Amino acid sequence: MLSKSLLDGYWRFRRENHAADKGRYEQLAKLGQAPTALVIACCDSRVDVSAIFDAGPGDLFIVRNVANLVPPFEPDGRFHGTSAAVEYGAEVLNVPNIIVLGHSHCGGIAAYREKLQGKPDGTNFIGTWLTQLDGLEVKDEDIRTFGQETAFELAGIRQSLANLRMFDTVRDREAEGILALHGLHFDIGSGLILAHDPETDAFAPLPETVEA
Amino acid sequence: MLSKSLLDGYWRFRRENHAADKGRYEQLAKLGQAPTALVIACCDSRVDVSAIFDAGPGDLFIVRNVANLVPPFEPDGRFHGTSAAVEYGAEVLNVPNIIVLGHSHCGGIAAYREKLQGKPDGTNFIGTWLTQLDGLEVKDEDIRTFGQETAFELAGIRQSLANLRMFDTVRDREAEGILALHGLHFDIGSGLILAHDPETDAFAPLPETVEA
Amino acid sequence: MLSKSLLDGYWRFRRENHAADKGRYEQLAKLGQAPTALVIACCDSRVDVSAIFDAGPGDLFIVRNVANLVPPFEPDGRFHGTSAAVEYGAEVLNVPNIIVLGHSHCGGIAAYREKLQGKPDGTNFIGTWLTQLDGLEVKDEDIRTFGQETAFELAGIRQSLANLRMFDTVRDREAEGILALHGLHFDIGSGLILAHDPETDAFAPLPETVEA
Amino acid sequence: MLSKSLLDGYWRFRRENHAADKGRYEQLAKLGQAPTALVIACCDSRVDVSAIFDAGPGDLFIVRNVANLVPPFEPDGRFHGTSAAVEYGAEVLNVPNIIVLGHSHCGGIAAYREKLQGKPDGTNFIGTWLTQLDGLEVKDEDIRTFGQETAFELAGIRQSLANLRMFDTVRDREAEGILALHGLHFDIGSGLILAHDPETDAFAPLPETVEA
Repeated sequence: MLSKSLLDGYWRFRRENHAADKGRYEQLAKLGQAPTALVIACCDSRVDVSAIFDAGPGDLFIVRNVANLVPPFEPDGRFHGTSAAVEYGAEVLNVPNIIVLGHSHCGGIAAYREKLQGKPDGTNFIGTWLTQLDGLEVKDEDIRTFGQETAFELAGIRQSLANLRMFDTVRDREAEGILALHGLHFDIGSGLILAHDPETDAFAPLPETVEA
Repeated sequence: MLSKSLLDGYWRFRRENHAADKGRYEQLAKLGQAPTALVIACCDSRVDVSAIFDAGPGDLFIVRNVANLVPPFEPDGRFHGTSAAVEYGAEVLNVPNIIVLGHSHCGGIAAYREKLQGKPDGTNFIGTWLTQLDGLEVKDEDIRTFGQETAFELAGIRQSLANLRMFDTVRDREAEGILALHGLHFDIGSGLILAHDPETDAFAPLPETVEA
Repeated sequence: MLSKSLLDGYWRFRRENHAADKGRYEQLAKLGQAPTALVIACCDSRVDVSAIFDAGPGDLFIVRNVANLVPPFEPDGRFHGTSAAVEYGAEVLNVPNIIVLGHSHCGGIAAYREKLQGKPDGTNFIGTWLTQLDGLEVKDEDIRTFGQETAFELAGIRQSLANLRMFDTVRDREAEGILALHGLHFDIGSGLILAHDPETDAFAPLPETVEA
Repeated sequence: MLSKSLLDGYWRFRRENHAADKGRYEQLAKLGQAPTALVIACCDSRVDVSAIFDAGPGDLFIVRNVANLVPPFEPDGRFHGTSAAVEYGAEVLNVPNIIVLGHSHCGGIAAYREKLQGKPDGTNFIGTWLTQLDGLEVKDEDIRTFGQETAFELAGIRQSLANLRMFDTVRDREAEGILALHGLHFDIGSGLILAHDPETDAFAPLPETVEA
């Protein structure tokens, strides 16, 4: 049986949120989805992706895994969940945007840092999953500007952006101008988002308006 | 550059939602997360997990992949993102609940049904990812009660619940009474949730209150 | 040959607006539309519907005719363009909202008022089109509050809302809670929007936030 | 109550767009409109007429109906919304241009093609509205050059141009040199516009500059 808080939460959703937006949900059920972005985010409970973009039903196609990682392109890898989602988002849903959304206090990235410091690495799946980060290139400049913890998280975002570009379908669409890649880092405490600038390879706070 | 709608959405979140809940976000940043459940959901943009449980920051640790699948336990499999998240949820975060949240109109499950009907299966990652469903046991009774589309989606949820129980850590915690597993199916159009009853193995609408 | 201003405008759109949003346009071309609202607006060049709701491509299905009128339900009427659009919006696109968007300084409504004052009515099509307004019920209270010109425009909006409810498809969807009807009046000079309150049948300025 | 996204959109418009252009809006409210063109466009949410011509308030008088059709001249037809708008544009507003703006992926034109292929036609209003297309003359050359879907859309534009010339007021003004008719076809995905050449009766991409 579901716990009371989850069950009550569902009935509040059903009677208020879903009821108020019922027409939109029925329309989406009948016509299908055409989300504006694919977001690769962490499983972390403090990162509510829809809330962060104030997005409604149908707006965001969201993959969530530990540490918001995109594995390198490996067509023979088994059960590549994130790669399948990237393919689905790009080729089936034709999303115009892919966002890698990292965040502060990331337990996955922290586990990788601890491994570097000689702590025993996670056994089984977590450890294997995080081997993707082996050899992560952390920038000295980021360490100086943002501190070591954040610098590792930013490096993870850069690596996922690079891995996304190993997919032909991503690279081709980006070259054609119909797909844009974004690297963002969300600070849980302050709400600040740093955005990756592809020209300088640096991260800086999101501006308030779209620049010309 | 982020599109205007995403950027505007972020600033609404930052100024309204995050500002209103800033104390909670700061607390979560300092103390870490202790979510009440791990939810395995689909990437589908029409399934907003936090909204469905009216959950706030810190409440739900969420994995999202195509068709909300838990792969079978395979310790040597590379880059097993979902398995790593299950392990993290159970062993690091000690979540008391794991929810497999399926949904109506699932494109991943539909692709598997089409493959059964002889249509060419998805190439590359999507096709490989969905081979997890090969041999899926769909119940005649579900087909009669809910129709074929839903019956396949329910079968997928049952399989993921079974695969979760291949993890020692999950099985042990369940036996100890400190972890409960739930299989739920969300209907996008109506908002109805069907819940899996472990005693009868059948699905029925969620009750309004927790039974004694 | 197109005039220079139209041609230049198109190339600005093509090189800036469409290029910046090219992925979204390609996605919409491939996946089709699922607009959030059907808007019935006037042809008036001063009423830019997409601008008024800051809407992007794919957001609004827009019918525009002289004086934003919905004709009464007459299944045998020939070439009922607006009725066809209402049917398409409700039954094919399953829009969750229909908005009748009137506006200040409406030439169509003014022509009807002038006819009441004994001026010769428009010949041909305009005159025939505006016979829909014959017998329009203008509220004294609106005349007192907003002046005669606006009061006629508000009466036209009320009549179109009533005519919309002559469509079974509209009435049934509204009863089911999956379609909401809205009557709005846009003041060109000030930008103010008055909204129709279905409970009181009165118009009042749009609030800043959605009330609970 | 308006949905949050529509309400938020309005307040962004009011505070940014309308505020920035307030003088122009006040002027237009006081002096009336003098638009540079009457545009007959489809209701389709992916065709934002003002955006396509980068037009501001007061620039374009816009009729929108399903499939951007101009019905044949029939003075006794009841409630001929589009004909009334044509008359209003030509005789009241003296527009120097009328543009028939078709587009790719048109659901109305597609419904007509499906009817030709034996599929049951739309009931009620949509079906009646589309009987205007019965006997549509599609050019073999267009099918060869642009494919069948586009060729039907181009044929619809030619027919609407011909129907416009059934109006004395349109024909006379064109002969007098004070009104120009244009047939354009907008491709949603690429943004390309094909323009009808009255001399050759063929469609070709819009040039970058006005030819001498």
